[in-house]
Amino acid sequence: MSKPTPLSGFPEWLPPQRMIEQQLLARIARTFELYGFAPLETRAVEPLDQLLRKGETSKEVYVLRRLQDSGGDADLGLHFDLTVPFARFVLENAGRLQFPFRRYQIQKVWRGERPQEGRYREFLQADIDIVDRDTLPFHYDAEMPLVVGDALRGLPIPPVTIMVNNRKVCEGFYRGLGLADPEPVLRAVDKLDKIGPGKVAALLTETAGATDAQAAACLELAAIAAPDASFADRVRALGVTDPLLDEGLDELVRVVDAAAAHSPGLVVADLKIARGLDYYTGTVYETVLAGYESSGSICSGGRYDNLASSGAERFPGVGISIGVSRLLGLLFGRSALTVSRAVPTCVLVALTDEDARPAAGRVAGALRSRGIATEVAPAAAKFGKQIRYAERRGIPFVWFPGADGAADSVKDIRSGEQVDADAAVWQPPAADLLPVVSAAVTAGS
Amino acid sequence: MSKPTPLSGFPEWLPPQRMIEQQLLARIARTFELYGFAPLETRAVEPLDQLLRKGETSKEVYVLRRLQDSGGDADLGLHFDLTVPFARFVLENAGRLQFPFRRYQIQKVWRGERPQEGRYREFLQADIDIVDRDTLPFHYDAEMPLVVGDALRGLPIPPVTIMVNNRKVCEGFYRGLGLADPEPVLRAVDKLDKIGPGKVAALLTETAGATDAQAAACLELAAIAAPDASFADRVRALGVTDPLLDEGLDELVRVVDAAAAHSPGLVVADLKIARGLDYYTGTVYETVLAGYESSGSICSGGRYDNLASSGAERFPGVGISIGVSRLLGLLFGRSALTVSRAVPTCVLVALTDEDARPAAGRVAGALRSRGIATEVAPAAAKFGKQIRYAERRGIPFVWFPGADGAADSVKDIRSGEQVDADAAVWQPPAADLLPVVSAAVTAGS
Repeated sequence: MSKPTPLSGFPEWLPPQRMIEQQLLARIARTFELYGFAPLETRAVEPLDQLLRKGETSKEVYVLRRLQDSGGDADLGLHFDLTVPFARFVLENAGRLQFPFRRYQIQKVWRGERPQEGRYREFLQADIDIVDRDTLPFHYDAEMPLVVGDALRGLPIPPVTIMVNNRKVCEGFYRGLGLADPEPVLRAVDKLDKIGPGKVAALLTETAGATDAQAAACLELAAIAAPDASFADRVRALGVTDPLLDEGLDELVRVVDAAAAHSPGLVVADLKIARGLDYYTGTVYETVLAGYESSGSICSGGRYDNLASSGAERFPGVGISIGVSRLLGLLFGRSALTVSRAVPTCVLVALTDEDARPAAGRVAGALRSRGIATEVAPAAAKFGKQIRYAERRGIPFVWFPGADGAADSVKDIRSGEQVDADAAVWQPPAADLLPVVSAAVTAGS
Repeated sequence: MSKPTPLSGFPEWLPPQRMIEQQLLARIARTFELYGFAPLETRAVEPLDQLLRKGETSKEVYVLRRLQDSGGDADLGLHFDLTVPFARFVLENAGRLQFPFRRYQIQKVWRGERPQEGRYREFLQADIDIVDRDTLPFHYDAEMPLVVGDALRGLPIPPVTIMVNNRKVCEGFYRGLGLADPEPVLRAVDKLDKIGPGKVAALLTETAGATDAQAAACLELAAIAAPDASFADRVRALGVTDPLLDEGLDELVRVVDAAAAHSPGLVVADLKIARGLDYYTGTVYETVLAGYESSGSICSGGRYDNLASSGAERFPGVGISIGVSRLLGLLFGRSALTVSRAVPTCVLVALTDEDARPAAGRVAGALRSRGIATEVAPAAAKFGKQIRYAERRGIPFVWFPGADGAADSVKDIRSGEQVDADAAVWQPPAADLLPVVSAAVTAGS
């Protein structure tokens, strides 16, 4: 076989990067569980008609067929997010779930996009959602950002800002302005960061039937942002009135106030946030990473009152999704994260000759039984070569079984210090037991 | 949308089952790391020509296409195991890896099989592999079963038996018998458990050109099994000689002896084990779960000397794969595993009225900061209703914030015992902190 080459859009991390990803995921999952979210995984595939029901991403769906298809199978596609599969799961299993149902889900998703920087065709998402039967209390909309803030705080990554808006604010405002169909307005405003206010104004007149004055008002609304409830007065000062606008402002104030009390600085109300997918009906979230603002949102979501419904059954929900691959891709791209070694191994047991392998295996077993990750050397080479095996992987300790009844000894190969040791009791320093992830010290910092 | 129905072959666990799966996976991953295996994930897709290179499963590959394909993309399929992608990864990244390279990989794989009991189209595998450049020491073949034994021991599942064979034993034996092409012989013998010795004998004469005496000898070899090195004498007693047979017997004895010293009873030499995939060149492993022997192997693998090679570069490997979905599917099918609650939550904070939500949130935050998973009640309903919310999910404790300066109290809703408590210091009993997975007590046991 010829030497394989990477596939554009399908990132693969080397083991040290995967170790960083795992520690990040463990922290995220642990935080989700501390908030009572139960774990769930759904299958990777959904019937194609489900995937094509909603949203702008439907054109990006990967369709599956069996190589030797004998017909009769439903048309299947790979899921492009975790919200649509979750809504389907809730409908399918409603009789076996307790509502309100809180779940988290950490899985790969796939989108057949044209690859470009920061856009992947396969990527990992970490989602939380809460759904209830018939109605879902609004306080859950305020809880979502707090969970994400807790999950990401304490990780060696730059701080995040969660930008919150509410579709009701936008739709009510547009309606109050006299623009009855909010969809083309939202789609135009959603492009603000990409194409700028001038072109958005042109789009609004072209695609949403707005007058110049209406377009200007939409842009004024989108320009409002504040870390506290003061945004509401600035919206009201624009002079547009509508009951839905009032309802949206009240909701958005509750989200901002709750976050300001729990995690000052975490959340801002930002009225330009629209979200492309059209299943959101109220609160919407986007998140930027400090220093990476131009790279787009690394954590998004919102309230969806109508996504999961079947006949008379309706399960409104709210959720938020951390784009784990997106986040790590940005940080890895600037070499911003580092891990203290390239393998889980803490101790390498050296070998004097191949006959000593069973005894070395018993030393390794004794260390492992106390939680110390241990390998035995691959061959009874010269000790210098065995030490280099450890060095190249960042394994901090090499264990030398004692010959002829002499005590074993263990060497810290960074300092060169070697001490007698007993595999039944020896402990490495706490900082060496597991690989440690930290922010990389770069020339610029 | 109409009520969705399950897709055959794509299992989905409810959250309590997923919690069981997660604890199993955590134990498996932790054991792999204790042995120094580094984590890796590869993309879900491989170029189709890679997937179709080897083995009988190629017809089962799921092929991907983008819904709106603009052409020019490579043909891609979903991986059907984790070994072929790993071999590709090693070739692609050889210059950035340290050899011997030990990695573990826990991911979904997909096979477009006709669904039947115990066969899935999407399932989770947990693999370890070790590859080296040019040659790989044989002692790694002996290490594989020990890692799996350690990973599964201590879990609340029935004991496993790992059955080991060696392709060199079979091929040398067949060659010594005068059967030059081992492939059709292996394929026939591989069907022994399914169709029985009579039909295998007929297959051997029909498809492998065997005489009745040769077929009988092949069946005699396949009938040999032993938990220790005694199998080798029984093979030699069949009177067939061949250098490859001798090499295979020596290797197989080393695997069995190492396992007998480390984990008595874990491994047996079983000379009928063949493995369907044709990339194995030496040791092969299969594993049965006590009480589920007829359900086939739940952990399989082997030595592959030629899977990863490109031009002059060659990376022989050995690996073993725990069929996590297969294993759990069997146990869930008999309701053999149970978890102490249906959610991670340990404490539900009750609410007297909605205005108390911020204060309840502070109690929850104090408990979470000390690792105690906590939810706040969804609404300020009557306490009886809030307690039923906890009961239905198996949440053991309900927390009552004290009114007007009175102390908080916490109630164990199983015993009814209620005590004053301070969220800054209260600890649940250790057994209640996290959900506990255990073997279910069934009527028959």
